Amino acid sequence: MFESSVTVEWGDCDEAGIVFYPNYFYWFDCTFQRFLRSRGLSQRELKRLFGAVTPIVDTGAKFRGPVRYDDHLDIVAAIDLWDEKRFKVAYRLSVGGTPVAEGFEVRAWAALGEDGRLKGKPVNADFKKMMM
Amino acid sequence: MFESSVTVEWGDCDEAGIVFYPNYFYWFDCTFQRFLRSRGLSQRELKRLFGAVTPIVDTGAKFRGPVRYDDHLDIVAAIDLWDEKRFKVAYRLSVGGTPVAEGFEVRAWAALGEDGRLKGKPVNADFKKMMM
Amino acid sequence: MFESSVTVEWGDCDEAGIVFYPNYFYWFDCTFQRFLRSRGLSQRELKRLFGAVTPIVDTGAKFRGPVRYDDHLDIVAAIDLWDEKRFKVAYRLSVGGTPVAEGFEVRAWAALGEDGRLKGKPVNADFKKMMM
Amino acid sequence: MFESSVTVEWGDCDEAGIVFYPNYFYWFDCTFQRFLRSRGLSQRELKRLFGAVTPIVDTGAKFRGPVRYDDHLDIVAAIDLWDEKRFKVAYRLSVGGTPVAEGFEVRAWAALGEDGRLKGKPVNADFKKMMM
Repeated sequence: MFESSVTVEWGDCDEAGIVFYPNYFYWFDCTFQRFLRSRGLSQRELKRLFGAVTPIVDTGAKFRGPVRYDDHLDIVAAIDLWDEKRFKVAYRLSVGGTPVAEGFEVRAWAALGEDGRLKGKPVNADFKKMMM
Repeated sequence: MFESSVTVEWGDCDEAGIVFYPNYFYWFDCTFQRFLRSRGLSQRELKRLFGAVTPIVDTGAKFRGPVRYDDHLDIVAAIDLWDEKRFKVAYRLSVGGTPVAEGFEVRAWAALGEDGRLKGKPVNADFKKMMM
Repeated sequence: MFESSVTVEWGDCDEAGIVFYPNYFYWFDCTFQRFLRSRGLSQRELKRLFGAVTPIVDTGAKFRGPVRYDDHLDIVAAIDLWDEKRFKVAYRLSVGGTPVAEGFEVRAWAALGEDGRLKGKPVNADFKKMMM
Repeated sequence: MFESSVTVEWGDCDEAGIVFYPNYFYWFDCTFQRFLRSRGLSQRELKRLFGAVTPIVDTGAKFRGPVRYDDHLDIVAAIDLWDEKRFKVAYRLSVGGTPVAEGFEVRAWAALGEDGRLKGKPVNADFKKMMM
């Protein structure tokens, strides 16, 4: 599990004064990067250590209430599903303790083959251990 | 049904040379705006004609293959579900005829109440007719 | 003067692995918002207290070296020019003490007139005092 | 000279209902990409043909009037200065014939050296001819 937070800035909101929703996915991805960093990892380290990248294959979000400029958004991330070749990162977002949104990213474990194409591979066991 | 297209630009891609995925949701939203425009509508017209806004309550996307800088992305949008207070816009994305992604937005029909808060309402029948 | 920082995330970089430059301006704006917040202000407070907004009329940036994913970017902001109806926010950016970029925003002080149009006004003296 | 256009979308605007200004720089960059494309070029072709990239070293914009959701923005780009190792792309933006903004990008001509670092080089003469 990993906790992070974001202050919603002016440029994150649309004319209705609420977060323009693609930004939530930007925050999901940033949170995953920070999650990696908290384990001594990064996209670059994944490539260096395991020869792997983690492309998104499925993602989604549900929004329960509006989030606005200046709101302090708390984000809790947890990998709640490990498949053979994929894992799912779940995100729960709240403002002042009130849930406002939840989402997920299903990421594949993929290695660059000799032909330069990505190929799905079993998730590395060390990586799994580091992220638990 | 409505068809649109986007050329993937340099700034839409990440270091791996593929589309940074939150951008897909930006394109979904843009396509919905263009869809409205093709029916003589817009977010402003919805407010003016029906006193309504259409906040996203649920969204998601699946990615089948990488999309890159300079790719020409064809997007087909269709509202494939009408609930009493919600409707679902489905998006299918392809490059040169090959499907690369699909996604959806569930949008609520909401009116600004006297207390300044959004309140779910039955989807306006005229709007539904215009978008069919 | 005000200091802030940003960790450069995966989605902030382009295919060349360096920051996609429009993001610098997003960070300038975010830093200005944080600067306001550090003085007990915000865009909303400016409107409430002074009936004013601060639209950008001129902006620019020079980039001295590449900034990459995972870099920790230090940003120093200072208002270094007060005109009658405008002020200039200067930004200096560094990574690990090495200057990497500098930029500025010239912001006008504007009030919403009775006809709904923005009109330039002398910068409020209290605001100036609060930001010094 | 090259002409392009953009329809301002919902997500491009901020709570004040006007374009969030970093988006102008995104459009500058997109217009440069389209400019290249109109000459049979692209970032990838520049690398392939000339072994070169064109990093931004200086950029700026002035905004004369607000641009809003649904506005049709016309953009005229022209390279109006060729230095030995740099060139300047000027952008003029208008809505319905009324100038709303202008900006520029100074791009360096840089080649990847053997040590993996970018190094400024004289702008390739063929490139210059193609863009005139």
